[in-house]
Amino acid sequence: MRVTVLAGGVGGARFVKGLRDAVEDADEITVVVNTGDDLWLSGVRLQPDIDSILYALAGVNDTERGWGRAGESERVSAELQAWGAGWPWFTLGDLDLGTHLARTGWLRDGLAPSQVAERLGARWPIGVRLLPMTDTEVDTHVVVEDGTRMHFQEWWTRHRASLRATAFESPGIADARPAPGVVEAIEEADVVVLAPSNPVVSIGPILAVPGVREALGRARRVVGVSPIIGGKVVRGMADACLAAIGVKTAADAVARHYGRRAEGGVLDTWLVAEEDAALAPGLEAEGWDVRVEPLWMTDPERSATLARAALRP
Amino acid sequence: MRVTVLAGGVGGARFVKGLRDAVEDADEITVVVNTGDDLWLSGVRLQPDIDSILYALAGVNDTERGWGRAGESERVSAELQAWGAGWPWFTLGDLDLGTHLARTGWLRDGLAPSQVAERLGARWPIGVRLLPMTDTEVDTHVVVEDGTRMHFQEWWTRHRASLRATAFESPGIADARPAPGVVEAIEEADVVVLAPSNPVVSIGPILAVPGVREALGRARRVVGVSPIIGGKVVRGMADACLAAIGVKTAADAVARHYGRRAEGGVLDTWLVAEEDAALAPGLEAEGWDVRVEPLWMTDPERSATLARAALRP
Repeated sequence: MRVTVLAGGVGGARFVKGLRDAVEDADEITVVVNTGDDLWLSGVRLQPDIDSILYALAGVNDTERGWGRAGESERVSAELQAWGAGWPWFTLGDLDLGTHLARTGWLRDGLAPSQVAERLGARWPIGVRLLPMTDTEVDTHVVVEDGTRMHFQEWWTRHRASLRATAFESPGIADARPAPGVVEAIEEADVVVLAPSNPVVSIGPILAVPGVREALGRARRVVGVSPIIGGKVVRGMADACLAAIGVKTAADAVARHYGRRAEGGVLDTWLVAEEDAALAPGLEAEGWDVRVEPLWMTDPERSATLARAALRP
Repeated sequence: MRVTVLAGGVGGARFVKGLRDAVEDADEITVVVNTGDDLWLSGVRLQPDIDSILYALAGVNDTERGWGRAGESERVSAELQAWGAGWPWFTLGDLDLGTHLARTGWLRDGLAPSQVAERLGARWPIGVRLLPMTDTEVDTHVVVEDGTRMHFQEWWTRHRASLRATAFESPGIADARPAPGVVEAIEEADVVVLAPSNPVVSIGPILAVPGVREALGRARRVVGVSPIIGGKVVRGMADACLAAIGVKTAADAVARHYGRRAEGGVLDTWLVAEEDAALAPGLEAEGWDVRVEPLWMTDPERSATLARAALRP
């Protein structure tokens, strides 16, 4: 069964791990990864979501801290601080920097980000194929209440999303194209799954790449997993993002934000948590195919169970 | 007394340290540093000679190994090897990478290499001013016997200069300009000193920047210190470089290679080692002002004594 997942970082990684356990042949899984929170920092190119998924699938991620590599150290970062370079609030781990330097060197050699992702994916037997959503450099900027514009990472990591955002912008996205293989992976999949990632800054940028929505329109079947459980975000600060675009932090509001394919949206089926079962009838009355499932991915078995539920016809 | 030194890495650093001890006001020392062995590696910009001099002047260099930072580690480099990225034979230390990343980030922000050097020079109280010879990117390439062309660092560090070189090339040097301040530092100095650095790949590139020879022509006084003692190179593999351009590894041959200003060369005075005293009469017969001095910079006191000798009218 060919499965294509649209995913952001940590939540996406957990879902994809479950999916890898749930299917017979992981080779048939393609993950289209958000690159909207990519950035240049201290001269190197960072792709946080690609790396989060890669590290998680390789089993080298730091599960306690929730991000980065296990066994990480920060010698280079301490030097950068001593130089007054980079962002003191954005730590670059030494092992992680190995990835950034390898990537930046390959990009400098002329490789496209999708070719770099292929090389990165070849180091460990991760099974699945990782594709950046686009080879075009499209970083997300955030406009906050007082009109200041900043890189998404500054808003997210430095300010912990505490400044009220009024808009998310992706300069250049109108000219971006899906990375080679993205449209085919969506069109040829038996199921496309929108992972329970941040709808605004993880899934949003993927859908904003010209051609992706059209490809989803031609897909066999598109299933979404709610990132909201019981009216709360599972992790991260998606509520601050949803508020900025006027969407309530609720499983049904996010479904309506994505929309049904029958009405110009991107989804056929929407998985909500048992805690949100009461929201199902309202959506069903609007024509939605809603499934109530256990959405907590608290261990590999539960993640695999959720993935199986997402694949169920 | 205003002193300007043209210098390469390790030998240059030792001489400049001695000079700093020898003069009353280190503020009046400007070091014009070779950038011919700069390179891009794993996405970052390396400037080995700038860093060698900086680390030595700051007292943070590894004196046992002879290059890089003291207390260095290689965690990032191990990752790069695991990725199959970069050059496995060219180690990037973690502390050193902090410098490379700070520099690369600042270059990416739009700073010129000379502005970056100023920032780098401000971290420690090194006293002297460091100027790259040029802000133009001019890396040295080496052509070896079989016609293969490679980056200087590949020839020098990977092959330990063991492949017979037939030419050193600096693509783009004809269009390079001296970095801001270089010409003034040469013209306004009371003495310009050519440090006992590699004449071919350290001092050579500086002299090849259009405008530098002309500035030396207008300088008050230019003194050179022989990098050859008793017919042998003090360190490094300058003999392999000299052979490639048809110059004998001998103190008098190097003097003639630089040439007297009175005859279109760059020097007024040439310091040779006591071991090479026998070569002095021959040079004197040709009109050279030759001084026989102890040239071994085996400790700070001897380095300062040599610097004083170079400044003596």
